[in-house]
Amino acid sequence: MTTDFKKAALDYHEFPTPGKISIALTKPADTAAQLALAYSPGVAEPVREIAKNPENAYRFTGKGNLVAVITNGTAILGLGNLGPLASKPVMEGKALLFKRFAGIDSIDIEVNAESSQAFIETVVRIADTFGGINLEDIKAPECFEIEAALIEQCSIPVFHDDQHGTAIVTAAGMLNALEIQGKTLGNARIVCLGAGAAATACMRLLLSLGAQKSNLYMVDRVGVIHSAREGLNQYKAQFVNDGGPRTLMEAMTGADVFVGLSGANLLPAEALAAMAPDPIVFACSNPDPEISYELAMATRDDLIMATGRSDYPNQVNNVLGFPFIFRGTLDVRATRINEAMKIAAVEALRQLAKEPTPVEVLQAFNVDKLEFGRDYILPKALDARLLGAIAGAVAKAAIDTGVAKLHYPAHYPL
Amino acid sequence: MTTDFKKAALDYHEFPTPGKISIALTKPADTAAQLALAYSPGVAEPVREIAKNPENAYRFTGKGNLVAVITNGTAILGLGNLGPLASKPVMEGKALLFKRFAGIDSIDIEVNAESSQAFIETVVRIADTFGGINLEDIKAPECFEIEAALIEQCSIPVFHDDQHGTAIVTAAGMLNALEIQGKTLGNARIVCLGAGAAATACMRLLLSLGAQKSNLYMVDRVGVIHSAREGLNQYKAQFVNDGGPRTLMEAMTGADVFVGLSGANLLPAEALAAMAPDPIVFACSNPDPEISYELAMATRDDLIMATGRSDYPNQVNNVLGFPFIFRGTLDVRATRINEAMKIAAVEALRQLAKEPTPVEVLQAFNVDKLEFGRDYILPKALDARLLGAIAGAVAKAAIDTGVAKLHYPAHYPL
Repeated sequence: MTTDFKKAALDYHEFPTPGKISIALTKPADTAAQLALAYSPGVAEPVREIAKNPENAYRFTGKGNLVAVITNGTAILGLGNLGPLASKPVMEGKALLFKRFAGIDSIDIEVNAESSQAFIETVVRIADTFGGINLEDIKAPECFEIEAALIEQCSIPVFHDDQHGTAIVTAAGMLNALEIQGKTLGNARIVCLGAGAAATACMRLLLSLGAQKSNLYMVDRVGVIHSAREGLNQYKAQFVNDGGPRTLMEAMTGADVFVGLSGANLLPAEALAAMAPDPIVFACSNPDPEISYELAMATRDDLIMATGRSDYPNQVNNVLGFPFIFRGTLDVRATRINEAMKIAAVEALRQLAKEPTPVEVLQAFNVDKLEFGRDYILPKALDARLLGAIAGAVAKAAIDTGVAKLHYPAHYPL
Repeated sequence: MTTDFKKAALDYHEFPTPGKISIALTKPADTAAQLALAYSPGVAEPVREIAKNPENAYRFTGKGNLVAVITNGTAILGLGNLGPLASKPVMEGKALLFKRFAGIDSIDIEVNAESSQAFIETVVRIADTFGGINLEDIKAPECFEIEAALIEQCSIPVFHDDQHGTAIVTAAGMLNALEIQGKTLGNARIVCLGAGAAATACMRLLLSLGAQKSNLYMVDRVGVIHSAREGLNQYKAQFVNDGGPRTLMEAMTGADVFVGLSGANLLPAEALAAMAPDPIVFACSNPDPEISYELAMATRDDLIMATGRSDYPNQVNNVLGFPFIFRGTLDVRATRINEAMKIAAVEALRQLAKEPTPVEVLQAFNVDKLEFGRDYILPKALDARLLGAIAGAVAKAAIDTGVAKLHYPAHYPL
């Protein structure tokens, strides 16, 4: 990052007031009469109604539109374990995105917990406060156990965005890229570099969408994950592949798809050159991808490339997912975010890229056209259609799978 | 409460959107460039700065202006133990008051904890998120242990408003009432009906301001607290008085001051009639006082009476305290709210009642004058001078006692 950008980022956070979010009142509270409704004695009425029926919390408090962004700070962005307090700008940023893109009220909670068990206990105890929980920046493999326990123990939806948000957006882009390259998930040889939270969730979702386990190679720091390796945890063990390749280079030879969720510049040009014709490269390490866009393009001209960056085509960005997934979930008061809802989000997201791009988006990017193709496999974050399309699809899937407590909102697409 | 008021209170909470507070963005987040500062990649910069020095959280996040209103729902208003979820409207109401009166961002956290220990652990683990913690509606005697443990274990100020907010406002009104009646704390015979969180804190503060323990009778459901009683907890035991009286009526005979923090209509007119000349009655049970204003006035005409109600003179209302106490505390980044800061708040609050009432306040109450006297011993909640006067006094006391990390704010009174 340049010195100028660094200064701009710090100034943005510091001035004119520290941080990015604040509390606002949604009801008038100027006069003594209004205050008597907002607090004592009027507030006793909704208290009594909720004591009679807990569901009334959704009628009389902000619970139903409130998502907590919760972390223990063990895997902050690409920066590692810096502790809960240092993660606060990221969590507040997530809250900002929830509000900005989906009108969801969101607050950050940084948990200083010495163990997964302590973290889980803490979140369970405060969960009633919220309508949903977005877990964030929790390192693998603890994040899997934590998410599973919280889904089990909380009555509200719990979603680890680093896993599922990443997986949903990646899968949507991947399905579109495969279609453009004339390939299918069922036949594609897939190499995933990285075996953390995001990589695990991405590969799980691709498998559930039709990818073949025998054709999928997950590569960590040691090499390809295979059954003869010692000390594999249960999460890595589910991806063992004894098909032959043991190194990244061996796995990449003839591969159709590369997904990088690892670190900067870990994919050599030789490995890209060894891929099958018309390959797909998702180099999603942030801020610097597994192979630079320039080097990839100089290496071969038949690929589709996506990155996590906004300054190249095909940005794979979680903001395309989580605000709208939670919007649809909250709108029908779904008790969880299940696989059907995730897949509905994938389908809605990929479909948008195939439809004519709104003129506002073209203007924002100062281009004449953005048409479905190698340089446009995913819609842009500023595309206002995302809200209705994804939230509506998620809400419908929640209803169809019986986890919704409310009807389909009238203002979403049919 | 009337049916109309009940409906108005529920409607206020339900429409047009549920609840009373929401999240707002304090920074622009419209364009891709702004989002790059607010979230990835720009947000990595403040993360790094905070990782280097935790104090930087106050520069780059909302922590320094964020107060959590935290409860376990065991003593909600006068309604009792209805559980954490049912308390949410009260906690959101408190958050609304923090913002409305002092510009403090505040969120509610309802903790579902099976024990005091579990509650304490939970709050300690999430405390770094906030700049201060306001405990609320936690029943006695657990609230004493909880507050003490949290003050010990948290690096941010922790304040149980039901105790200290009530005590500060009560003490300010009491000192003024004594002055008007020509009495002093040191000579006054005081009867406190109720021995819960608020009563305990009020009497402790009056003792520290000069009241005599030998002249103070605390009365609970059993009667006067004295040393021959069995099963007194340590909090009640500090108020034993073996001076003779064993019943409320005996204690009230010749008493100068009555403080009621108990329940509706528990003070008989006969007990009021038996008080010394020029007595002071603070009947603060909500919504119905220990003796109705009408009955008290019909019983004798030499008293000063205060209640918790806004529809009679001399409302003792916590909103006169907590927003401004936290404002002053946060503004100088005090690490705790100590006795000197509480007493500074008492003095600033009582002083305001002696100064000319602002014309806006007179207009709001549609009166020609509000002058220091029997019917005006405390300023009104809508008095805009409260902010500077109390926050300034609290900030100064924090600095003088060495618990502040910042200088005195230039915009407060000298």
